[in-house]
Amino acid sequence: MKYHIADRMDRMAPSGIRKVNEKALAMERAGEHVIHFEIGRPDFDTPEYIKQAACKSLADGNVHYTSNFGLAELRQTIADKLGRENHIDYKASEILVTVGLSEAVFAVLASTLNEGDEILVPDPVWLNYINVPNLLGAKAVTYSLKEESGFQMDLEELRSKITEKTRAVVIVTPNNPTGGVLSQNTLRQVAEVAIANDLLVISDEIYERLIYDGEQHLSIASLPGMKERTFTMNGMSKAYAMDGWRLGYVAAPEEYIAAMNKFHQHNTTCAPSFVQAAGVAALTQEGDEVAEMVKEYRRRRDYAVAAINDIPGIHCQCPKGAFYIFINCRELGMKSAALSVYLLEHAKIALVPGDVFGPGGEGYLRMSFANSYENVVEGCRRLKEAVKQVRQAK
Amino acid sequence: MKYHIADRMDRMAPSGIRKVNEKALAMERAGEHVIHFEIGRPDFDTPEYIKQAACKSLADGNVHYTSNFGLAELRQTIADKLGRENHIDYKASEILVTVGLSEAVFAVLASTLNEGDEILVPDPVWLNYINVPNLLGAKAVTYSLKEESGFQMDLEELRSKITEKTRAVVIVTPNNPTGGVLSQNTLRQVAEVAIANDLLVISDEIYERLIYDGEQHLSIASLPGMKERTFTMNGMSKAYAMDGWRLGYVAAPEEYIAAMNKFHQHNTTCAPSFVQAAGVAALTQEGDEVAEMVKEYRRRRDYAVAAINDIPGIHCQCPKGAFYIFINCRELGMKSAALSVYLLEHAKIALVPGDVFGPGGEGYLRMSFANSYENVVEGCRRLKEAVKQVRQAK
Repeated sequence: MKYHIADRMDRMAPSGIRKVNEKALAMERAGEHVIHFEIGRPDFDTPEYIKQAACKSLADGNVHYTSNFGLAELRQTIADKLGRENHIDYKASEILVTVGLSEAVFAVLASTLNEGDEILVPDPVWLNYINVPNLLGAKAVTYSLKEESGFQMDLEELRSKITEKTRAVVIVTPNNPTGGVLSQNTLRQVAEVAIANDLLVISDEIYERLIYDGEQHLSIASLPGMKERTFTMNGMSKAYAMDGWRLGYVAAPEEYIAAMNKFHQHNTTCAPSFVQAAGVAALTQEGDEVAEMVKEYRRRRDYAVAAINDIPGIHCQCPKGAFYIFINCRELGMKSAALSVYLLEHAKIALVPGDVFGPGGEGYLRMSFANSYENVVEGCRRLKEAVKQVRQAK
Repeated sequence: MKYHIADRMDRMAPSGIRKVNEKALAMERAGEHVIHFEIGRPDFDTPEYIKQAACKSLADGNVHYTSNFGLAELRQTIADKLGRENHIDYKASEILVTVGLSEAVFAVLASTLNEGDEILVPDPVWLNYINVPNLLGAKAVTYSLKEESGFQMDLEELRSKITEKTRAVVIVTPNNPTGGVLSQNTLRQVAEVAIANDLLVISDEIYERLIYDGEQHLSIASLPGMKERTFTMNGMSKAYAMDGWRLGYVAAPEEYIAAMNKFHQHNTTCAPSFVQAAGVAALTQEGDEVAEMVKEYRRRRDYAVAAINDIPGIHCQCPKGAFYIFINCRELGMKSAALSVYLLEHAKIALVPGDVFGPGGEGYLRMSFANSYENVVEGCRRLKEAVKQVRQAK
């Protein structure tokens, strides 16, 4: 029989990150020693106190469905955190607990975008913000994050992209893949634009805690007039090295929470019960675990940025947040995709070609420094050698 | 500002089960002793060996993303189980691990139904099979499961509902809410209809292990010519009392797995890593834990069926599977919804009105016997008393 696959699936591209990862894994199976700079997830173990909370919850018999909205205690804990750290006054009833940030993104977009609606998303961008609108029959319209401006937004460009169909703006700060952090000034201007044009703001703050050099994370919902139009999305994956636990959340006005919960209850019912209990522990019993991880990320970053900028033919900005370096390789005169393949095959280092994140990423490679210091050092050595060969071959 | 909620959300009804549950919980908070017959989840704790496997996996550091498709070991374990117990020859590459059965259902429907497509679903039915097609802009067309036929399908009726737009048939056996088990004869006829009309079959087998009186579960994909057109969906929730763990799967030809994985990777990324490890344990290290639970479900069922059929004015069939009794209350002359409210308010027993599951459920109440034997006994006593009052008031 022929396959009956819905048209909407053709509107979703397979992951370009995964493609690099699969090739790297195949090389490893063939005995090669590959250094993984392509993976966007913490390499640390989850702090012990969080694991213990999960096992205690399991032992206590918390093995059944929670409320679709999430455990009451977790919703309150998240609301408290958003008040204390992000200066936004959310009630527990304004929190929806999701299966990771990814389900939060899906729930927000499914609940707000009609077919034909437009949504403004960064370029380059984590591709869920392109693929999920596409799946829903909406249209992602990109605005640029340019290296020349420190990966800030160009507000004139943003305004020029607004049409009658524009429903929302996505902002991601700290940013994947650029490592940029939107300035307070940029965020205030985005807020002005959103209010003036009655747009929703979908704020991805998953890298909030991974921030360096005294930069301050600002939640756009904390600005005057913004809470009512903002979806504040976050999760435990990056800060607490809990990506495999799949625990995220979205904060928004109750009307939206109700709509998103209809999606969520049919989609996944709820996040696992004892995982939610561990989420309460993560947010309330934290010692210096996160600070220690951030310190180590910064050490690797400092080494890698210096090493990369010491390689003739490539250069990078020093990322202010997240664990990515967006390496400018334009001078080498190769397409990002071809360069990525070359580096993997010849230098055994896996980096994601920037064009995977949108046309604005062409000419760049994304390096994740969520890998050991030793691997960062060795990977930069391999990168230097390989870039030298590329330049000699020109 | 006004709320910008996507039109598709209006096509999803809020859960009628939840409405009963919330009223029951509110009464409990006010000090009432309510007996919960509305909840469709095991009341047992998850077997200890599965909890231990999860905690061991956590201790071993399995805290990061797995493959989007699921842990290789779990996919192989599921394929082995489907071969051994269900007599279907799946490869590991034909398995997608999901966040519970609910995400499997969503992934199957999103990957196969175009807007305007029709899908045949039972009436009465678990409402995800109505609401998710609606969300996707497809149309759920119902076929009847009638008490007179032991809740079997009427193949003539099924055939009469097929149009050029019909893409798939959903079957649920053992069934929620009827407790019926489709006979081998019925399933063979469904297979014939599916092949003759080039339809996909979406087979929900989540209650597979909860089956009584020597009934045999038959997976429709094991019939000749059916594997290529069947989505075999199952999960750990019901058999292993793991509903709060959110672990399910779908088995299908690789082309469909690839399409569904695109949805799944953008939706939830993967099921939690250590939950997947626990799933391997659940399927490979089972002793008599499930058999013991089934034995206890049967004991409660036997009591409740006898007690209900001893109450003048209501009656029920003896369910052959799952943990639901679909009680016929037509003789009382009240709408199901009103009767449910009456029983909750006056007798403090929570049952779901049958019309929540579709028009074919009007005149019925769904009773879940996933509650202690003592509560089943006391609940039936209250039911008898309340029905007597209803009859006297007529």
